[in-house]
Amino acid sequence: MNPPARTALFAVAAWLCNCASGAPETPLNHQPSANRLLLGFGADATAAQRALEAKFDQQLQRANMRDWMKRMTSHAHHLGSPYGKEVAEFIATQFRTWGYDTEIEQFDVLFPTPSDRLLEMTAPSHFEARLAELPLPQDATSGLTDEQLPTYNAFSIDGDVAAELVYVNQGVPKDYELLERRGIDVSGKIVIARYGGSWRGIKPKVAAEHGAVGCLIYSDPRDDGYFEGDVYPQGSYRNENGAQRGSVVDMPLYPGDPLTPGVPAGKNAKRLAIKDAPSLTKIPVLPISYADALPLLKALTNGPVAPEGWRGALPITYHLGPGPAKVHLKLQFDWKLRPAYDVIAKLAGAEQAEQWVIRGNHHDAWVFGAEDPISGTVTLMEEARVLSELKKQGWRPKRTIVFTVWDGEEPGLIGSTEWVEAHAESLREHAVAYINTDNNGRGYLRVSGSHTLEKFVSDISKDVFDPEKKISVEARLRSDRIVYGSPDERREARDRADLRIGALGSGSDYTPFLQHLGVASLDIRYSGESDGGSYHSIYDSFDYYTRFGDPNFDYGIALAQTAGRAVLRLADAQTLPFEFTDFADTIASYLKEVKKLADDMREETRETNRQINDHDFDAVSDPAQILLPPKKHDPVPFLNFAPLDNALAILQESARAYEIALGKARATNVSWPAQAVQDLNAILMKTELAMTLDRGLPRREWYKHQIYAPGFYTGYGVKTLPAVREAIEQRRWPEADQEIVLTGRTLEQVAEEINRAATMVTTTSGQ
Amino acid sequence: MNPPARTALFAVAAWLCNCASGAPETPLNHQPSANRLLLGFGADATAAQRALEAKFDQQLQRANMRDWMKRMTSHAHHLGSPYGKEVAEFIATQFRTWGYDTEIEQFDVLFPTPSDRLLEMTAPSHFEARLAELPLPQDATSGLTDEQLPTYNAFSIDGDVAAELVYVNQGVPKDYELLERRGIDVSGKIVIARYGGSWRGIKPKVAAEHGAVGCLIYSDPRDDGYFEGDVYPQGSYRNENGAQRGSVVDMPLYPGDPLTPGVPAGKNAKRLAIKDAPSLTKIPVLPISYADALPLLKALTNGPVAPEGWRGALPITYHLGPGPAKVHLKLQFDWKLRPAYDVIAKLAGAEQAEQWVIRGNHHDAWVFGAEDPISGTVTLMEEARVLSELKKQGWRPKRTIVFTVWDGEEPGLIGSTEWVEAHAESLREHAVAYINTDNNGRGYLRVSGSHTLEKFVSDISKDVFDPEKKISVEARLRSDRIVYGSPDERREARDRADLRIGALGSGSDYTPFLQHLGVASLDIRYSGESDGGSYHSIYDSFDYYTRFGDPNFDYGIALAQTAGRAVLRLADAQTLPFEFTDFADTIASYLKEVKKLADDMREETRETNRQINDHDFDAVSDPAQILLPPKKHDPVPFLNFAPLDNALAILQESARAYEIALGKARATNVSWPAQAVQDLNAILMKTELAMTLDRGLPRREWYKHQIYAPGFYTGYGVKTLPAVREAIEQRRWPEADQEIVLTGRTLEQVAEEINRAATMVTTTSGQ
Repeated sequence: MNPPARTALFAVAAWLCNCASGAPETPLNHQPSANRLLLGFGADATAAQRALEAKFDQQLQRANMRDWMKRMTSHAHHLGSPYGKEVAEFIATQFRTWGYDTEIEQFDVLFPTPSDRLLEMTAPSHFEARLAELPLPQDATSGLTDEQLPTYNAFSIDGDVAAELVYVNQGVPKDYELLERRGIDVSGKIVIARYGGSWRGIKPKVAAEHGAVGCLIYSDPRDDGYFEGDVYPQGSYRNENGAQRGSVVDMPLYPGDPLTPGVPAGKNAKRLAIKDAPSLTKIPVLPISYADALPLLKALTNGPVAPEGWRGALPITYHLGPGPAKVHLKLQFDWKLRPAYDVIAKLAGAEQAEQWVIRGNHHDAWVFGAEDPISGTVTLMEEARVLSELKKQGWRPKRTIVFTVWDGEEPGLIGSTEWVEAHAESLREHAVAYINTDNNGRGYLRVSGSHTLEKFVSDISKDVFDPEKKISVEARLRSDRIVYGSPDERREARDRADLRIGALGSGSDYTPFLQHLGVASLDIRYSGESDGGSYHSIYDSFDYYTRFGDPNFDYGIALAQTAGRAVLRLADAQTLPFEFTDFADTIASYLKEVKKLADDMREETRETNRQINDHDFDAVSDPAQILLPPKKHDPVPFLNFAPLDNALAILQESARAYEIALGKARATNVSWPAQAVQDLNAILMKTELAMTLDRGLPRREWYKHQIYAPGFYTGYGVKTLPAVREAIEQRRWPEADQEIVLTGRTLEQVAEEINRAATMVTTTSGQ
Repeated sequence: MNPPARTALFAVAAWLCNCASGAPETPLNHQPSANRLLLGFGADATAAQRALEAKFDQQLQRANMRDWMKRMTSHAHHLGSPYGKEVAEFIATQFRTWGYDTEIEQFDVLFPTPSDRLLEMTAPSHFEARLAELPLPQDATSGLTDEQLPTYNAFSIDGDVAAELVYVNQGVPKDYELLERRGIDVSGKIVIARYGGSWRGIKPKVAAEHGAVGCLIYSDPRDDGYFEGDVYPQGSYRNENGAQRGSVVDMPLYPGDPLTPGVPAGKNAKRLAIKDAPSLTKIPVLPISYADALPLLKALTNGPVAPEGWRGALPITYHLGPGPAKVHLKLQFDWKLRPAYDVIAKLAGAEQAEQWVIRGNHHDAWVFGAEDPISGTVTLMEEARVLSELKKQGWRPKRTIVFTVWDGEEPGLIGSTEWVEAHAESLREHAVAYINTDNNGRGYLRVSGSHTLEKFVSDISKDVFDPEKKISVEARLRSDRIVYGSPDERREARDRADLRIGALGSGSDYTPFLQHLGVASLDIRYSGESDGGSYHSIYDSFDYYTRFGDPNFDYGIALAQTAGRAVLRLADAQTLPFEFTDFADTIASYLKEVKKLADDMREETRETNRQINDHDFDAVSDPAQILLPPKKHDPVPFLNFAPLDNALAILQESARAYEIALGKARATNVSWPAQAVQDLNAILMKTELAMTLDRGLPRREWYKHQIYAPGFYTGYGVKTLPAVREAIEQRRWPEADQEIVLTGRTLEQVAEEINRAATMVTTTSGQ
């Protein structure tokens, strides 16, 4: 496995025929793996790597995944729980057994758990919400009620409020615009929002912005219950007592420990006072089941009938209120610092030990977490175990592989964020990429991440076979986009050489790596055929997962093969498999989107203002109902997108230059000094860093990445070119103009790095 | 009011400035009525007519509408009922009192009423459906249970069947395609379909085509119940016991008495045997409430979960079945001939008594029918009363006005169809146009009909004021299209001189006039702000209507003003107000649609076949579910649309020629002999007849019109250019080619008539 110190040009250049041809491979879907060179590998190295991957595949054992899952889900293991610590120790012990250099890093982080929860309706009749999921004979762990965290939203503030209820749909900004048009003011009221349409933490944030004093979030059976399918335990969907726990910390502001933004939550860290922590909610908030929501919504008979799109699947007429339903919400939390245990296990690289390929998954759950996160955790562990076997069999990775198993992901990516903040400097120096997984299930490969790795992961998807279909997971995904996609998606699925991957917003542990540090990241899972409603519930259990999730761990194996290949190839590649034409193509599509956003807003604003001026809204209003005209807005100015247009052109040129340089290098026969390969890799691994700006995004400094961010008003949902896009969305026109310039400069900074790489290839290969 | 025998050219031509300019009027929405000449009237005649209309408006009394409604809805008055006869006699008496030449014409028509109705679930548990709407203290007539027709579908055959249940969504052909892909065969089964997606009679028709032995149709609360709004008596929507009665006779084949297709059901008519009547259903069918449907659907736990778009608002997981729910359906009817009483009242014309302007509304109801049809019936009566007042005040219409009040509309347009069949020859000779109304409520003007009357009715809408907004109903409608329409509709609402009207399918008494005879027709109502769920229920009552429908009969007045103006202007116009550029423009849009239909089907077929061949469907199927690939179809050939393209060009030219001829006539100063005006009108009133072919539509000879027809698989829903469109939809390619030729010839036939009119104008005015 040990490569020569000097790399023959052939070996460096041969893989270029894959990424540098420009023309799609033919036939796209069924190219035999063996004939295709791996990105970053020459012919011999490809053959060796493929042999290694075959050995890797052969040794993956689903029984391990099953056993470990059974063990780790046998008790509740949330952040700060006794069994959570045991789980971390169990994982660490396994890694040690496998020969990894393993440690548990501890952080002391704020994690409130409920000491008092009361929700009662006080008018027009009395009803006290049960606020509990019920044990089921078909679900062995559901009866362990003593150790389960109750249903609540972490980082809600304490509160004791009583007020009339208002139904606010999904509780996103546009819902409040409509409420205002219907003459409904939520100030001083308690709002009830259904899950969906945004990440949950947005709901209390926007409710508080509008003056509400409390917030309930419920799972409507339309979105998460019997409307979707048979409910548990008959089927996999959320039953009437199921409630979705979850964090409501203001993650789009910054994730991690709310008391230590930007710095690690070590023993002696300087901490904010709880009252000063900006990421806590401003009002108390509680998640409830649809059994608990039904009496409340049924009693909400005042006010207009909710618009059609706002209505759920409860057997009632949905009204907006306010009242006559009045509710009393009392929440008290135990505001303790608790220990978070991150397991960090290293396998040192044989050649470039200072280059780290990081592979992560969290281990903490809301309750038992068989799917979320243990289905991913056991996959990561099985990958690690087999790597240790390969090592016993003589293999050593070129680069260092770091397995990371995080605590405290559920309350707010706490374990990963604190670790990243603790090791920011060395990570910026050493991290090649971060490969994240979380939950997993039957279905289709889902990858989101850095588009400089799009071709890399697209190639991997050609080499992993779908356990149900015996075709590559890539071919299956192409068929999915052909059958169910839009005409554009269908055309691309047929014609584009690489499968498109999504952009990362937030919701798992890649966020600190990608968006705070600027480390290229991928998030990988399988899903689509194991839908259900166990998310953040006591029913996310071993019994449930082995019935509805991935009963035979077939997709656990597929995920291990996928993420395993990503790790192995990144660790062993001669030159790092970053590629930039797909990236530039993606940026072009984002730029098109933000331009269209501005154009559409301009046209919409113009049209709406015209309708207001022409009294069209007055003409169509029904005197029996209140429906005020929308608000007038100032006209949307034409923005100067030239800085982004110019930057994109430069970026595209640099991507092409690198591609051409590699193509030419292939035609020559010059040997490369090892140092040159090293230098090239050193540039390549930092192209993502060039996408960050130290000042961060406007009003949220923690988020440094200028291409990808979670949306300030969407939460998990990604905003690409976020500084520009959100300035437009929020109608901050001078800011939009400034951010266009800054984002343009950032892209030019990336192009500069790519050009440096291209020049190095050109010079070294004597062109 | 008596116009001179010779009409000064000025008078003939002056109105042309309105329809012949081509340019839109400015400003579109607010042109003062007084400055606009009426179509077909000169300046003096316009002034006189406007004065007449003002007198007409002043004398309309909402108290009459209210009193008559209260009286006519005090008992059940369905076809064949004792009170139905009283209602007809009451109406006739009123007309006689008002001086009309009035008679009641009787037909003897088949009308089955239930003698036995049983629906029970026999597995997995027992449940017997209540099959009854309940009396409510808030609804005075709801307690008159003895006289109410029970909930049933008229013209279902007798049956006694027991089988497993299958849920078929709306029971239209594409629903069965999906069932087949899910591996579900309905043959030998009883299907349950929800209302919606087609006229109800399509559901048992398509179910029988697929081998089902029985059919239930229920009102899902998603479409017609609490999902929409508060239910009766708290609100206006259908409550859990409400069920929708209605006819299931195969109306798209032919309406009217099923035993006498094409001929009047007189005493001695030759009648088909009931077993030979092709328009009866092939399987028994019963409508049920959602209270009765819920236990059945809840017990339907077998088979896949219904696709998302198929799911309603009951608090269950919708499954497709079959079973385990098994039901037993027993239906027996009393197959009697019953008398239908049409009230026909004439006001003879002073000048062209042989030209009849016909105004109609039905009087029979399913039960009390306050909205359907009495809200329209009382409007018609008040129009007639005021005309009689105008007559007393010295006015006489130029043309004969015929008021028609139909019996037996509900079971299948029986009264109108039989009358039209009885008087076909003279109607073809004398009918100028038929103006229909049916139910009415608060809201917006809704007009569908012959597009040769589009400009005429668009002009009327500028002269009627919305009672809520004090702007013209036209301006309100334009605002509605501006605020809620598609971009195209919005642009047209701002820029097009005339408001577009819809095309007529079926569902009310215009069908025999328009589609069998070829008499230009309009259907007029107000709606949109009085939504509810009383349709064909015992709750369609006086109490309900005066609470939710049009409490003060404001829109009753608006409808009387609208339909009244249509009648008055058609009756008094010097030249008949038909216009052809809007018509040609509409035909152009239909032709574009059918071409697009063929193109879309071609592309879709090609794409689907490709996906089947490429095994894309196999790749995406979930092994845990059955989802077969769709069926392959032969490629869609390119059709020769040239005959329609050529015919359209000729039609457009003729419309323009008529417009230009009138424009030039205006510039000359020649007097027209009365006979020339007569001759021109004789041509104009028969242009609609030129749109018919005696052979009818393929496989449904009764329907003669080649532009408008109810869809064979949609029922009420219109199919324009039906012979061509349905041949394409049904993939009958040789037939499509033939029908393109025939429809093209029909359009040329229309163009020829228009050209004759143009030539007459040119010659007479000495151009």
